[in-house]
Amino acid sequence: MSQLKNDRFIKALLKEPVDKTPIWMMRQAGRYLPEYRALRAEAGSFMNLCTNPELACEVTLQPLERFDFDAAILFSDILTIPDAMGLGLYFAEGEGPKFERPIRTASDIDKLPVPDPEIELKYVMDAVRLIRKNLNGRVPLIGFSGSPWTLATYMVEGSSSKTFSKVKGMMFDQPKLMHKMLNKLAQSVASYLNAQIAAGAQAVMLFDTWGGALGTEEYKEFSLYYAQQVRSLLNTNQNGTQVPTVLFTKGGGQWLESMADSGYDALGLDWQTDIGLARERVGSKVALQGNMDPITLYADAEIIKAKVEMILEKYGVGTGHVFNLGHGILPDINPDSVKVMVDAVHESSMKYHKGM
Amino acid sequence: MSQLKNDRFIKALLKEPVDKTPIWMMRQAGRYLPEYRALRAEAGSFMNLCTNPELACEVTLQPLERFDFDAAILFSDILTIPDAMGLGLYFAEGEGPKFERPIRTASDIDKLPVPDPEIELKYVMDAVRLIRKNLNGRVPLIGFSGSPWTLATYMVEGSSSKTFSKVKGMMFDQPKLMHKMLNKLAQSVASYLNAQIAAGAQAVMLFDTWGGALGTEEYKEFSLYYAQQVRSLLNTNQNGTQVPTVLFTKGGGQWLESMADSGYDALGLDWQTDIGLARERVGSKVALQGNMDPITLYADAEIIKAKVEMILEKYGVGTGHVFNLGHGILPDINPDSVKVMVDAVHESSMKYHKGM
Repeated sequence: MSQLKNDRFIKALLKEPVDKTPIWMMRQAGRYLPEYRALRAEAGSFMNLCTNPELACEVTLQPLERFDFDAAILFSDILTIPDAMGLGLYFAEGEGPKFERPIRTASDIDKLPVPDPEIELKYVMDAVRLIRKNLNGRVPLIGFSGSPWTLATYMVEGSSSKTFSKVKGMMFDQPKLMHKMLNKLAQSVASYLNAQIAAGAQAVMLFDTWGGALGTEEYKEFSLYYAQQVRSLLNTNQNGTQVPTVLFTKGGGQWLESMADSGYDALGLDWQTDIGLARERVGSKVALQGNMDPITLYADAEIIKAKVEMILEKYGVGTGHVFNLGHGILPDINPDSVKVMVDAVHESSMKYHKGM
Repeated sequence: MSQLKNDRFIKALLKEPVDKTPIWMMRQAGRYLPEYRALRAEAGSFMNLCTNPELACEVTLQPLERFDFDAAILFSDILTIPDAMGLGLYFAEGEGPKFERPIRTASDIDKLPVPDPEIELKYVMDAVRLIRKNLNGRVPLIGFSGSPWTLATYMVEGSSSKTFSKVKGMMFDQPKLMHKMLNKLAQSVASYLNAQIAAGAQAVMLFDTWGGALGTEEYKEFSLYYAQQVRSLLNTNQNGTQVPTVLFTKGGGQWLESMADSGYDALGLDWQTDIGLARERVGSKVALQGNMDPITLYADAEIIKAKVEMILEKYGVGTGHVFNLGHGILPDINPDSVKVMVDAVHESSMKYHKGM
């Protein structure tokens, strides 16, 4: 495979010196782009985009044509694994993901298979291979998965939830059963990410979207423990190198010290967390990725630039920062505002990397 | 007015010695109680319950007949102020609160009146007076309001929101306008709480339900600042005594140090926050209220008791703890489980108060 022409993202995750702070954006391939909406309309559904490697590749590359992003992220869904387990993922218009056959009983959990990623999830691996080929070393490709806990929330609730009463009810009332399920999910997630690494993913990120719904003890026992397990099972890539890893728990700002001990190279931060204090708390253990409030992008260019500057300044001098939003970009953001942010990060960050 | 027969709650808020840890529960008067559902059906709507002092009084007292709670909380809604400002509060079945006339422009904000609580919100004050009379000193009565920021979120969004893109968009793009609105709201909230205190509320709580949607800087500037302003405007009661005050920012666990400096006597904690670490962080500045995960109440009695014990143990020896859930109780919880929790708190907590 071709050499990376822009390795700023990889270097920052590994805390190696860079010339400027790298930036990519959660949901950078998505509905805020008219060219995405056009392809999505053509494909007929979100899942058609995900399961067709050519379309997934095209969508993945779209934002790179407009913006100077330092990484591409595989276009896919966080719920491909439970879908491959047979739960029947579907998207009701305007309602978010749902499962036709949610997990309700011990026997449902016993019957859950650990999918073979090169069989049931081959469409994802084909997309990874095709994207790597088409990227041709331009920027690195990020692979990803939902975390075991986050997958479990959707699998038990059958959809997104405000209270998570079913999945947390199971956790409190039948902790052994929940552990059994999470163990299976950790195996499946590790195997899925390993297949992505084998197919060419140059970094991987674990999205723990709903870890923040837990209390501190429960977070450590039911979410972080399994994120660690996934990390410990990850293979090296084809060159025998460990690919950099990112762990993002939305709402996990109070647990950064524990997260920093979990073996991941970097932590994603939501916008509620102060990135300056976060750096003090995690010390040199991990790099940090984040964390501008996506809503900032509704504001005027001057305000966006000032917020970019504030985050860069809070992180301060030196490497180990990957700029990102604190959550995915919203569909009604003007793409011009994204350009303002991306260019501001590159321009304003140079002073923090001089002579490093 | 009659002397308080049970002042454990007030004493704990003021960090004075108590014999056992007091407990009350957010939404303790609510849908999980069959007697509430019966009265709600009779009244025809939630707002009919709120605006009728006799019914509001009856609902407020219902949970005290079943459980050994150490405080009553006024049955009302957090959005009575914007309703009194003329925005037209209504509840679409199963959808949460909405406003007929949300705030969209600078002129909408200019036109917002500061309601006179003894006129536009007299139904609330009548309820407070009636509840105090009927409580007859049994336990103290908590008055409350939504925080200025939380009221603003509903007023601009027109409803609850997942992203808060309208209100946060206004905040980022037109901060002066947002400050103008929040100033008016702080005046209104202070005047509303002062009227409740004059009518007999023996403690007051500010519910900052959506402060946790903000970044650290924005939380301090747009939420906490106005919570402090409210606090500084609060009057003493009819005896010339300052009533104890509680500030609860859901999702505010990262900001406890700043919150502890805001003048409130106690901080409410959501269940994500570790109450032991929280106590270390705030030191002797404030009491703490919380913070069992409401979902714990789905579990068996033995598990509920163990979780109660864990929270009491984490808080540790001495006064300054008011036991509560970390958020409102859910409608489908079995009232028997509430009894298990309440009794466990009283029984298990005695050892932490011996010889104090």
